[in-house]
Amino acid sequence: MTNEQLTVSVAIASWKNTVGRADKVFSVLTEEQFLREVAPGRNRIIYLLGHLTAVHDAMHTILDVGKRLHPELDAIFVSQPDGAIEKLPPVSELTKHWTEVNSSVFEKFAGLSPQEWLRRHAAMSDEDYAKDPTRNRLSVLLSRTNHLSYHLGQIVLAPGRVP
Amino acid sequence: MTNEQLTVSVAIASWKNTVGRADKVFSVLTEEQFLREVAPGRNRIIYLLGHLTAVHDAMHTILDVGKRLHPELDAIFVSQPDGAIEKLPPVSELTKHWTEVNSSVFEKFAGLSPQEWLRRHAAMSDEDYAKDPTRNRLSVLLSRTNHLSYHLGQIVLAPGRVP
Repeated sequence: MTNEQLTVSVAIASWKNTVGRADKVFSVLTEEQFLREVAPGRNRIIYLLGHLTAVHDAMHTILDVGKRLHPELDAIFVSQPDGAIEKLPPVSELTKHWTEVNSSVFEKFAGLSPQEWLRRHAAMSDEDYAKDPTRNRLSVLLSRTNHLSYHLGQIVLAPGRVP
Repeated sequence: MTNEQLTVSVAIASWKNTVGRADKVFSVLTEEQFLREVAPGRNRIIYLLGHLTAVHDAMHTILDVGKRLHPELDAIFVSQPDGAIEKLPPVSELTKHWTEVNSSVFEKFAGLSPQEWLRRHAAMSDEDYAKDPTRNRLSVLLSRTNHLSYHLGQIVLAPGRVP
């Protein structure tokens, strides 16, 4: 393994570990627990599940690695805050999407060479990229991993889930 | 900039951005707000501030880049949960440590070459490293960045801080 490959592998491993932790947390929640707020007056877990799925799905586009699986989730879980849409999709459907989306992006990651990870992402102009070459696909991957950790820290707070 | 340098820069930029976000969140909190729990029955923000400071300080050791500044924090903020120690250090002292520790580790990061980032970290045996070379200094950096994001997601929940 070259140093470049190794560096990219570390970032992908960090993503995979974090998704694995989230999977584990989601897998033990009951339907009723998905409807709990992470703290009084804050997002419900079901909303965060949909939000994370939509954001991960959008990585197909921003990394330019293929078509999104569920663009319809954005209108419910990204453009609108929790509570704005009266009827959310059922948990069983959302967890299915969550698993499919993560499998799909993970598969695409493996197809990118270290050089491709360092190329600018789709939301950056050539001009902006010239100014700051650290804003590339790899930075998107790290940013999304941290976004997941951020919400995961909230999800584990939902009362009653952890002793 | 070589591709190797660029890859490491992306990881350091992600750390720096996340610490910057935390700085911003901490900077607007009142003394009283630091004493609030992030959710009912969970850690207080003051505890998480000390915990994050101790964990960042310990990066000196695990990355093998110098002596820790405040090893005494571990006994209060790592080995013990919130509530176990009756009298915590004052917020003003902890925020000072927080800033100093982050400055110190950030300075050390700049002194490591891309090759050094890919070498095993101090808590790994040669044998374990041979089995999994992605468990290196860089993986520690990504892991600590995610750890910070995880708790940052909790800190912003403390009631009354965010409208």
